Amino acid sequence: MALLQNMKRRHFLVAAAGTAATAASGVPAMAQDGNELPDYVAWKDANDLIVHSKQTLETRRAAQGAALITPSNDLYIRNNLPAPSDEIVADRDAWEISFEGVANPATMTLAQLKTMGVETVVSVLQCSGNGRAFFAHETSGTQWSVGAAGNVVWTGVPLRAVIDALGGENAELPWLTGTGGEEIPPGIDPTTVMVERSVPKEAIDQAILAWEMNGEPIPLAHGGPLRLIVPGYFGVNNVKYLKKLALTAEESPAKIQQSGYRLRAVGEKGNASQPSMFEMSVKSWITSPLMDTASGKVQIHGVAMGGTSAPSKIEVSVDGGETWTEAKFIGPDMGPYAWRPFVLIAELAAGDHVLASRATNAAGDSQPADFEPNERGYGNNGWRAHAVDVTVS
Amino acid sequence: MALLQNMKRRHFLVAAAGTAATAASGVPAMAQDGNELPDYVAWKDANDLIVHSKQTLETRRAAQGAALITPSNDLYIRNNLPAPSDEIVADRDAWEISFEGVANPATMTLAQLKTMGVETVVSVLQCSGNGRAFFAHETSGTQWSVGAAGNVVWTGVPLRAVIDALGGENAELPWLTGTGGEEIPPGIDPTTVMVERSVPKEAIDQAILAWEMNGEPIPLAHGGPLRLIVPGYFGVNNVKYLKKLALTAEESPAKIQQSGYRLRAVGEKGNASQPSMFEMSVKSWITSPLMDTASGKVQIHGVAMGGTSAPSKIEVSVDGGETWTEAKFIGPDMGPYAWRPFVLIAELAAGDHVLASRATNAAGDSQPADFEPNERGYGNNGWRAHAVDVTVS
Repeated sequence: MALLQNMKRRHFLVAAAGTAATAASGVPAMAQDGNELPDYVAWKDANDLIVHSKQTLETRRAAQGAALITPSNDLYIRNNLPAPSDEIVADRDAWEISFEGVANPATMTLAQLKTMGVETVVSVLQCSGNGRAFFAHETSGTQWSVGAAGNVVWTGVPLRAVIDALGGENAELPWLTGTGGEEIPPGIDPTTVMVERSVPKEAIDQAILAWEMNGEPIPLAHGGPLRLIVPGYFGVNNVKYLKKLALTAEESPAKIQQSGYRLRAVGEKGNASQPSMFEMSVKSWITSPLMDTASGKVQIHGVAMGGTSAPSKIEVSVDGGETWTEAKFIGPDMGPYAWRPFVLIAELAAGDHVLASRATNAAGDSQPADFEPNERGYGNNGWRAHAVDVTVS
Repeated sequence: MALLQNMKRRHFLVAAAGTAATAASGVPAMAQDGNELPDYVAWKDANDLIVHSKQTLETRRAAQGAALITPSNDLYIRNNLPAPSDEIVADRDAWEISFEGVANPATMTLAQLKTMGVETVVSVLQCSGNGRAFFAHETSGTQWSVGAAGNVVWTGVPLRAVIDALGGENAELPWLTGTGGEEIPPGIDPTTVMVERSVPKEAIDQAILAWEMNGEPIPLAHGGPLRLIVPGYFGVNNVKYLKKLALTAEESPAKIQQSGYRLRAVGEKGNASQPSMFEMSVKSWITSPLMDTASGKVQIHGVAMGGTSAPSKIEVSVDGGETWTEAKFIGPDMGPYAWRPFVLIAELAAGDHVLASRATNAAGDSQPADFEPNERGYGNNGWRAHAVDVTVS
């Protein structure tokens, strides 16, 4: 019964979120009935987005397609606080960030960081709650299906180079804690709303302090002028408007760290003993076809990510997971943190088909059939919940 | 004296074309004084483009930066004829293309092509005349500096799969000839203006019939709904609005093939015995700094392409080519046809510096110091002409 409900829910979600008219001329539409973009992201492509709220916009499943890189104007938005004033990107190079918990603490400008090294990494940006909508139980929070994720090119200075230039990190301090530059509304205890996240300091070796996204200065809505990027980690750890980075003895006291983004059983409150949403897991989903298609040869498309280890195999089922066929990755391999589009060309007869995909990464992890229900609906990478019901006629 | 003139001209070009205000908020500006975008590309980023004419728009050198992929809204435009009506992208899947010179000639829709296979290739799109402005002699045509080039993700069906499905190509016919869907103005001999290009049929094995560019349906301005992409070949061979593809006994009779895009000595008229602008050559250029910078550690950025063989080495000189230092590629290798951003961190003292870059590809070809002047100013890949004069203070 739960399964049946889930199937119905899934089909509803695909219908609601999956397809949209493509802008006929390739010109991004400025608005769409009932899907008005908030002003601060008015430059995005309304046709490819679902506006859940002013702070939460999801990429349509169909729009993800077989894209190697998610275009910036299609990338999802999930902001824990309103974006700061755009004055902070008026002179990007003047942005200041302080470093603590290193041999020689210092405050540096973005201009200084830009002389210290540069690297480009392609990494999936994904909200911890992506896939929440597919859980059968009631969850609070945005009902994301698959579109709180994108494959993004980040360019900035390797954090290791900066830390080394500051004399290295204090070896006693196990946490790397980043603080965002959002304004805290007056009269509120900052720890209850501030965006400050701690990750194990091992992340120093893969993190970059990024000033560019997809070849352009990071838009304000996505954390410019400077964003901490921890490749392979869920979105929340990639602190926007980064103004302080510290090695710390303890995890941040912020609610977003202490009780938020914690994986726990349904009904439990969050606390710091529970697993935090750090590293992402292997995951994939189909992006086409979604609702119906003509019989005959059908290209089944989707995207597969490995989490912190490159996707190495992708299988597709056209019978709800009874049998699987290996599909083919499309385009260049862009490293362990990137997603890869895939395709399987299948002969589909008329009738109802349940299309599913299952990814395996280089570390040998495969998607489970189902991911354990949890209070906030985090981390869903079950292949069954991500399947689509397609009518072939 | 010619060298001095060239140096002055180069500096002027960088000043005029190199830098522009970056949109402070990350929001693309809709227009800029004296740089109004034509309506059909009004969705592009005016701040990052130089409008030479309605049909020729160049990406600013500074905007190229260290971008792994050129954002679509920054990509150059060079159209030989006005784009067709946007009615042709109202129903993209209905677009028809005819195939001739194969065992079983046929007309297919884009929807049909989309069931026959899919591949993604990252390939530099570059106008034959890119670098024309750096020649010391007078040339007709758009005075491109470095911005008639971009690194683009193309997705479509491998041409080989389509030809094979049509029973294979007629082995006697050595040319692959693509015809564009532009409207020919009435009363004009079609061969004088039509966009029809022939390339050696060996290109079949690398070409794709592309419907997506940078993860979105190809905008009309860039050749959607369907464009022939011949990776590693100059832009003109990548026929837009592809409506016919044929194996042919002879090269197209179109002027654009017979006498246009032919490499010949200054003063000579074009004819079919001269080399055609097919494969691109190894090339690189610096994108930052361009005019002036502060002394101390400076990140020297640029992009390097290999033509039809991956870039394998990139060297940078800060003394006009007297001495060279190997620089570092940034980000993932995306195959033989893609460009790679690079960086060298150099200590620059106050004074004037001539910054140059020199790329080598996997086939062992390096950029020459100078590329032979030629009538139309095609194919310029000389490192000296692409150098920039930077004042360090």
